[in-house]
Parts: sequence; C-alpha cells; structure tokens
Amino acid sequence: MAPWESALSDAVRRSSSAADARSHRTRPFYRASRDAAQGRVVAWRLVNRSHKRKQPPEQVSELTTNRLSVYLRCLNELDAAGVQTISSQGLATRFHLNAAQIRKDLAYFGEFGVRGVGYYVKELRRHLRKILGLDRRLRVAIIGAGNLGLALADYPGFRQEGFEIVGLFDAANEKIGHESRGGVPIHDIKDLEPVTRRERLDIAVIAVPAPHAQPVADLAVSAGIKAILNFSPGALVVPEGVKLKSVDLTVSLESLSFYLAQGDSHG
Amino acid sequence: MAPWESALSDAVRRSSSAADARSHRTRPFYRASRDAAQGRVVAWRLVNRSHKRKQPPEQVSELTTNRLSVYLRCLNELDAAGVQTISSQGLATRFHLNAAQIRKDLAYFGEFGVRGVGYYVKELRRHLRKILGLDRRLRVAIIGAGNLGLALADYPGFRQEGFEIVGLFDAANEKIGHESRGGVPIHDIKDLEPVTRRERLDIAVIAVPAPHAQPVADLAVSAGIKAILNFSPGALVVPEGVKLKSVDLTVSLESLSFYLAQGDSHG
Repeated sequence: MAPWESALSDAVRRSSSAADARSHRTRPFYRASRDAAQGRVVAWRLVNRSHKRKQPPEQVSELTTNRLSVYLRCLNELDAAGVQTISSQGLATRFHLNAAQIRKDLAYFGEFGVRGVGYYVKELRRHLRKILGLDRRLRVAIIGAGNLGLALADYPGFRQEGFEIVGLFDAANEKIGHESRGGVPIHDIKDLEPVTRRERLDIAVIAVPAPHAQPVADLAVSAGIKAILNFSPGALVVPEGVKLKSVDLTVSLESLSFYLAQGDSHG
Repeated sequence: MAPWESALSDAVRRSSSAADARSHRTRPFYRASRDAAQGRVVAWRLVNRSHKRKQPPEQVSELTTNRLSVYLRCLNELDAAGVQTISSQGLATRFHLNAAQIRKDLAYFGEFGVRGVGYYVKELRRHLRKILGLDRRLRVAIIGAGNLGLALADYPGFRQEGFEIVGLFDAANEKIGHESRGGVPIHDIKDLEPVTRRERLDIAVIAVPAPHAQPVADLAVSAGIKAILNFSPGALVVPEGVKLKSVDLTVSLESLSFYLAQGDSHG
C-alpha cells in the first residue's frame, strides 16, 4: 500500500491543479484528436436520422445499454452460425430474453425490424456496434497491475470487440517497466497524465485496493480521462462530465444463488 | 497448457462415469447436508405464501435476478445511510433505475410495498436476500489459479454477501499446495471431486484459459456441482439441471463506450 500512497501524493502535487491538468485536453484538442473517427461519426448521425430516433440517448439507462451489449453478443453468435434473419421472439426464445423488452430497447434508437422478416442479423449487429460506439477503437488504461489488473489487461473479450489496452499503471517499483503476459506494458502511475495525453486514452479501468480507488480516480480525471470503469469495491465520486461505471462481480454469483435457492425450495 | 491437459484427462479417467459420480451426491444426501438451512427454507416458503407469489420462479429471467441484485445493493446503501422507507419512484430517482420495472420485478415474488409508505428498507432487503438465496452461506470453488482466479478468490464483495470461497483448483504443480494472498488454498484439479463432496461445494467458478473451460465444466458437473459461473470466453454446454452463467466483462466496457460515442456526437 505504501508505494500507492507516496506515488499518488507525488503525482497529485506534480499535476498542479486539476483545472490546469484538464486544460491539457480541452474540447477542441479532444475533437481534433478524433479526426480519424469523424467520418464514421457523421455516418452514424445520418443513419440515426433516417431511423427516427425517439429518445435522446441521455435518457437511455445503463440497464438498457447493458442489454444492447447482450443482444450484440447474441447477434455475434447468430452471425457466426450463419443465421441471416431473426424475429424478436426468435431472439428471445433462443437466448432466454424478453421479446417485448428487445423491441422496446431497440425502439430508442430507431426502427430496425422489418415486418414479416424480423431483424437482419448482420445489419442489426452493425447498428448495435455503432450505437455502442464500437465502430472505432477505444484506448484503455488499466490502473493497478495486481491479479485483477493483469487478468483484465489480457482478457481476450476486450480486444475482440475493439478495445485497445494501451497500458497498465502501478506504483510498485518491481512491476514498473515489466509487462503483462499478453505484452501490455506496466507504467509508473506518476506518468498517468503524460501517457494519457500522448496515447490519447479514452477509458481508465480501476483495479487497485479499495482505499486507493478514489485518489486514483481523481488522478485519472485530472489526466483528462472521461470514462472510468471501477472494479474496486465502494462508491467513487467523479465530477460531472465524467462517466463512472462500477462493476460488482457479486451480481453474477447471486443469480446462481437464486437458482440454487429455488431448486431447494422446489425439490 | 500442458498441465491442464494431462490433469484433466487423468481426472476424467479416475471419475468413472459421470452418472456414477453424480450418485455421490443424490437428492436425499444433498437435502440432508442442508439441514442447518432447513428452518430458513421453510420460513421463506411461509413468507412466500403470505405474499401471494404470482409466477413460478422458473419463469423469472436472469435479467430480473440481476436487477434484484442491483436493488439489493441499493437497499444496502440506503440501510447503511439510515433510510427507513423508500418508494419505487424514490429508488428509481436515487439510483437511476426504472420505477415501473422495480414494481414489476418485485411483483414476481409478492407484494412488498405498503400504500402511502413505499418499501420498508430493512424488510425489503431481508426479503431480497432470501429470494436470492443469500440467507445461507454458499460454498464456492474457483477453478484456475491464474491472475483472474486469484483475483476472484480474494474479491472482497463475495465474502461480504455470504459466499465462502473454499478453494482454488489448478493443474500446475508449482501452484498446488500454496494459497492466494487472502489465504484460499490451491488444490490439485484432480481432487475436485473428493473436495467437492467433502466440502459440500455449491458453485464452481471457471477461470481457466478458453480451451480448457469445457473439460473443466464437465469435471465440475461430474463432481456434483449444480451451478457454474464461467469467466472464460466462449459458450459452454452443461446438462439439464445444472445452471450455467457466463460473465462477459466486455459488457461493462461497452456501456462506457456508448457514453463516449453519444458525448462525441452531441458535443
């Protein structure tokens, strides 16, 4: 824990004020750095318009976007299996989903189904990737090169969907300069800000022990990161304009617990 | 990879047939081993009856149980903050959820709200823990003592909600006999079956490289495990009567990606 504490206080001292730090990555700079993706952003707007979006995306809940991810995973599987079209009912039956929910979730973003046909698998998959922002490579930093950080750095699913794990960051001297088994370099946490700017990082994943999660999040925000995925337990606070998502791995175990409990009371 | 392969083929050979193995843990044995929890199971039935359950739990989707977990997390937070009652609308506003969805999800299990009052936080929390089967300790094995397995073994959230991580299992000689930083012992994967029986394990978490996930799942099923949480990428097949849940960590990154994409197209 000691290395984290001294490294964090050093880094905060060096980064003058948060406001100063943030000015390293002002809106125009950010947009300029996105030139390569501009074409695709414009395309998405056009598609969007032609699909009569019904609700501004700010009102789309995280539960909805989580479901869109699930639908995308299903469509990937269908596409790989050579399925060309599928109805919402077919999707629901095959993947134990809710057909009405599928239709409602997709309706936020346009009209994708064709009466009498259902959804074209490839097309809906392409739309979902676009809606989820997966049509460009997002650059990710993982803070914390412990077991969880190292596991996440080499997690095959991330790369597959277009996320690029650019670097790990840690405070322990014996880790800095090495790399994960998959070849992700481990940087000094003190260099988070310059590396974020140089490498144009989009997302920081926090995988440090709970007491260091908030200072690490503050540091990521100072460095100009706009989206944080937190695996450390406990609530974090980030300023408006920064999106925070916390992953609670307990949820998945609890769904099994539910099943076992029902099995018992029925058997 | 080599240690996994030879260990798995050994273990499968030694476990005679899957049917034989399963008979080590027949229904009556399982129920007998649950004596301590019986009182609570009965209590839950009574509560349940008095709450007029509207749908058999088999029809409750995983998305619903995932949401119940989320509600439980919210109620934990409210309870810790000293909040005594809250309406579905209050819950929704405070935690960015959907009030109608909350009411619908809870209605599967009974009538928990009180007109003019809303939900009693402590009481609803207790009900949700019971519904999710968290009112007894569930015993968990983690298969794979790599970075992910070791991280999961010491993940603080599991213990907090009543899961007991009994052991890790691996095929690598240099790991067997050691333990995780948090003190979870690493067993030989070949001993999965006797340890499962002796320790009365409920859930197996799979955190091995993708090519070994299916043989490891088969082994867990042979050993009598009835619920599997899979972190390895790719689809697994388990026989009927065994509950499989796969965790895709990509989903959480995609929800951030969604946010960043919308931010860009709006800014």
